Amino acid sequence: MGDIYESGDQDKRKPMSTGLYISCPHDIKSALQYAFNFGYHFVITQITHPSYARDVLRNKFTGPIGRTDRILKCSEWGRLIVAELTPSINVDSEIDHVHLQSKAQLLQELGFAYHLGVPAIQIHLKQRNNLNLARIIYQKILSSYTLSIWLTIPMVHLSRYSTLCGPDEKEDTWDWWNDFRIHCRYEKRLGLVLELPDVKHIPSPCEIDRWLGEPVKALLINTSLFILNTHGKPVLPKIHQEIIQKFMALDVQYIIKTNSTGDISMYNKYISFLGRKLYTPNENEAVYKGMEDFLQNPLQPLSEHLDTNIYEVFEKDQIKYTTYQNAIQKALQAVPEDIETPVLMVVGPGRGPLVQASLNVSYILHRPIKLYAIEKNPFAVNTLLDRVENEWGNKVTLINEDMRVYNPPDKADIIISELLGSFGDNELSPECLDGAQRFLKKNGVSIPASYTSYIAPIQSTKIFNEILSNRPADKSVLTCFETPYVVHLVNFYKIDEPKALFTFSHPNWNQYSSNERFKRLSFSATQDCLLTAFVGFFDTVLYGEIILSTNPKNHTENMASWFPIIFPLPEPMQIKGGSTIQVAFWRAESADKVWYEWCVESPMKTNIVNPNGRSYFITKIC
Amino acid sequence: MGDIYESGDQDKRKPMSTGLYISCPHDIKSALQYAFNFGYHFVITQITHPSYARDVLRNKFTGPIGRTDRILKCSEWGRLIVAELTPSINVDSEIDHVHLQSKAQLLQELGFAYHLGVPAIQIHLKQRNNLNLARIIYQKILSSYTLSIWLTIPMVHLSRYSTLCGPDEKEDTWDWWNDFRIHCRYEKRLGLVLELPDVKHIPSPCEIDRWLGEPVKALLINTSLFILNTHGKPVLPKIHQEIIQKFMALDVQYIIKTNSTGDISMYNKYISFLGRKLYTPNENEAVYKGMEDFLQNPLQPLSEHLDTNIYEVFEKDQIKYTTYQNAIQKALQAVPEDIETPVLMVVGPGRGPLVQASLNVSYILHRPIKLYAIEKNPFAVNTLLDRVENEWGNKVTLINEDMRVYNPPDKADIIISELLGSFGDNELSPECLDGAQRFLKKNGVSIPASYTSYIAPIQSTKIFNEILSNRPADKSVLTCFETPYVVHLVNFYKIDEPKALFTFSHPNWNQYSSNERFKRLSFSATQDCLLTAFVGFFDTVLYGEIILSTNPKNHTENMASWFPIIFPLPEPMQIKGGSTIQVAFWRAESADKVWYEWCVESPMKTNIVNPNGRSYFITKIC
Repeated sequence: MGDIYESGDQDKRKPMSTGLYISCPHDIKSALQYAFNFGYHFVITQITHPSYARDVLRNKFTGPIGRTDRILKCSEWGRLIVAELTPSINVDSEIDHVHLQSKAQLLQELGFAYHLGVPAIQIHLKQRNNLNLARIIYQKILSSYTLSIWLTIPMVHLSRYSTLCGPDEKEDTWDWWNDFRIHCRYEKRLGLVLELPDVKHIPSPCEIDRWLGEPVKALLINTSLFILNTHGKPVLPKIHQEIIQKFMALDVQYIIKTNSTGDISMYNKYISFLGRKLYTPNENEAVYKGMEDFLQNPLQPLSEHLDTNIYEVFEKDQIKYTTYQNAIQKALQAVPEDIETPVLMVVGPGRGPLVQASLNVSYILHRPIKLYAIEKNPFAVNTLLDRVENEWGNKVTLINEDMRVYNPPDKADIIISELLGSFGDNELSPECLDGAQRFLKKNGVSIPASYTSYIAPIQSTKIFNEILSNRPADKSVLTCFETPYVVHLVNFYKIDEPKALFTFSHPNWNQYSSNERFKRLSFSATQDCLLTAFVGFFDTVLYGEIILSTNPKNHTENMASWFPIIFPLPEPMQIKGGSTIQVAFWRAESADKVWYEWCVESPMKTNIVNPNGRSYFITKIC
Repeated sequence: MGDIYESGDQDKRKPMSTGLYISCPHDIKSALQYAFNFGYHFVITQITHPSYARDVLRNKFTGPIGRTDRILKCSEWGRLIVAELTPSINVDSEIDHVHLQSKAQLLQELGFAYHLGVPAIQIHLKQRNNLNLARIIYQKILSSYTLSIWLTIPMVHLSRYSTLCGPDEKEDTWDWWNDFRIHCRYEKRLGLVLELPDVKHIPSPCEIDRWLGEPVKALLINTSLFILNTHGKPVLPKIHQEIIQKFMALDVQYIIKTNSTGDISMYNKYISFLGRKLYTPNENEAVYKGMEDFLQNPLQPLSEHLDTNIYEVFEKDQIKYTTYQNAIQKALQAVPEDIETPVLMVVGPGRGPLVQASLNVSYILHRPIKLYAIEKNPFAVNTLLDRVENEWGNKVTLINEDMRVYNPPDKADIIISELLGSFGDNELSPECLDGAQRFLKKNGVSIPASYTSYIAPIQSTKIFNEILSNRPADKSVLTCFETPYVVHLVNFYKIDEPKALFTFSHPNWNQYSSNERFKRLSFSATQDCLLTAFVGFFDTVLYGEIILSTNPKNHTENMASWFPIIFPLPEPMQIKGGSTIQVAFWRAESADKVWYEWCVESPMKTNIVNPNGRSYFITKIC
């Protein structure tokens, strides 16, 4: 009978880890067995039992403080039990004896949880003011290597929907969380458990998006949210399914809270079923697996030769090369018929995918071409030589030179390149193509014809913490925050839509033009949030109407070659809903390098980040 | 027929990874297939082929530099091929054009190997002077994240056995290696491949021990070393088996070098067979798995409560508690018969194993006792309370107090404790027991009665590098080198045998005695080596003749509770064979802490390490 949920392709499912919330069982071992019997993976429960009356303040030694540690093995405490603190603890009470008693009890329970080695401690937040709680938790996290804290709060506060509360009385639980984690300096061992609201109190999509930018560890689902479907089986309303689907990207866990004491396997099975029903990975999901929010240094293809691994990954992106081939075809068709053998030059061909695309176009159009491949990397040339010998023959002229110094015997009708980085110009495509256009005919074309970078403000303490924890021993913290990173962004909130920043067009015959740039952009924050960085994308016009884009607005479908780029702020900035975020970006250059600087001007001013390219630059030298 | 090697327990085997050395195959893909067909796991081979004549100095672009990268997938280059450099490269030649040509070729081959993404590059050292080679390799390692270098040298140099060479002409290949890695600051991505010598030129046991302290990645075995056994099958002589057995602890790989071009599966099968035949793990091997050379901070049981995980691990050490129980039994038998109910106090009982041992003794001897358990950790007391309630009843009086302040109603005939750390006194057993002896009768005894620490000089660049790479962001490098670590030592060389350092006896009724200590010790280095640290052990007399020891000389068999402790030197010291190593150690104390300082006086002087306990101390405060 439980099989009604067992549909869908077993290979395409998200494993869903479920926990059972059992506030205060008579016996933890039996409670754990009960949860296991119905398919749950772990239990959230109090580790002290209220039947042990304790007066921790007045008497050091009044009796047992909780369950004995020997009822479970360490490996069980360490994997299967999330410890809930006694809910009545309130260290932020203004009543002296409540505050003092609470503090003593909190320290004792934290100590006991640490003694047991549980993987996480769960604390319910019930109000906005948690300053004393935050202080004690921050102290404990810093003085231990392993302790994790899960803060549990409602996804939305009921006051938001109350007609009795004035605008100033309406609580936003995100503020509770934000205050707490700011006090604890965005500590990565602080996680969130969000209570799903009932159907009448669903938060707005942008509020949900903001939660998706937080370190959510679990969703807490009260079984009162379930409704019966036409088969009489409990299911969640569509709106809850949509929320769960969004959080699946964060690999959250699911905690079931129920009053039932009978068979509760149907809730667990249903969550598992959602893992199949709602999981719709895109084509590149398998390729990206494990790279979520992982920091990569942007490539420096001029100063460091790309290696065979990078070439191989790029060459797998069929969408990109098909689009390029279409662009080459359109461009070749536009070369006047009186030019008998148009000259095409692939500059920076790597191991040759665009050389192959050019040969394909010549073949398709039955039009002979003269084709140059101009590559500076001797190890890529080694491969190209092999392909000339065994595949292409004398159809390709291979040149092992930097395109900025090479003097070809011919001038080109079409120069083809793929020199774009995650931010468009950040791998020095402008400088390289300016150097190469010496051998482009005055009416010749460049593929790409132009490219534009885009930025948007984001909130992601995940990335903030990744930068901190990946700091190499020989770099300062500031250096690491003045450096952009290429990231497959998952755990973030986009505060506003991207806007266009810098554009470069080729060829560019204006001898007075420069590749330096400066621009101010303004963004709107619709709700309170934390600005931690700017994310960068780009799009490019290859030829005519043919474009490639990494901008989410019109991202080229299934293209896998580029992740977004992140420009961090050295210090997160608290933003009020309704504020304007104004940011300035520079692209600067000197004789030997190019770099970016950035600076927030509003709602608060920051110092200029990466002045003089002191922390990050792209070298022009081969 | 190959089955003659297939004996032994399949569960008790060391997996043996074997590679095949194929200097310069016509075709790498076929060579790889050949190796796979005969069961080998990887291939060592040149990535450039001599048939590609190259003059890298004079002409930038003369033709292909090596095999094309596309013959293998990146994942194959990255896992299956170790790249050998062209053997004729000699950047340390004094002939100008050889030096220049070699340097250009070396840079090209290193670049190509990096391009291919091979896991390691193998270089044969042929002489002691490799300064220019070391410089280039060090530069390349520092400028890449992944490059690993395997330096191949003979385990022993033939000149050692030549009657034609005078003493000054005899080469020690360890010096070749030691010079090289000193130039590269003990870089952890530098590994060693050692060529096994023939039976006539086996190095001495202490030379082999010194190699065992090095980062040996593989043993290179020429099939000419094999002899035929009585079944006509190739096997290695006993002396080679003994060497291989020793290196198995380092998880080295085995590279077969052969002139055969036929079926060579028997060598690979034989190595696999040795993985079963020679693997003799001790009882605790499974427990220790994965902890090899892993740094742990020494416990601070006074300032930080031990957690349930630590208690559970310790309680599993049956040998220790059986020995303790024997000691308690002997001590109780020695208490005069006229004392009707001897008073036993277990101070720091944790979760109660020594309480249980005391009850066992009382039962065995049919002698009633009065038993106190005095424990400061409230979470351990919580467990003890449960045991009192459910196991022991009123046979045990439980006190939740620090033994240094508790005032009992009785005085004890026997005080029993297990407060010893890896260095004996380093968890402040002397201070705790001095505090507790207030409630010991004047003729009462302490179990343990005494304990002594031992130290020995060692060489281990593995530990040196572990300390460097485990540095927390908020600590200086010096702080990390002024701190002792508890380590399951594997990859190290013991330069001389341990000698006794500090002894403490209990009870100690001499009111003028102090727990501060100072001692100088001298050790002999029989051969050239690198002093990187001192290792510490301890032994303890529990009662009479009953002892426990972690000193390798008389280590209590199968006892698992303690690993050695390491006192690092901030800078490794080069030691000549025949030198005396003189070291001074202090145990110092102030009102609130205890610490060690140490200093080498000979053969060279160092600054005093950890002055005033600035980097490491043990706090006395609960």
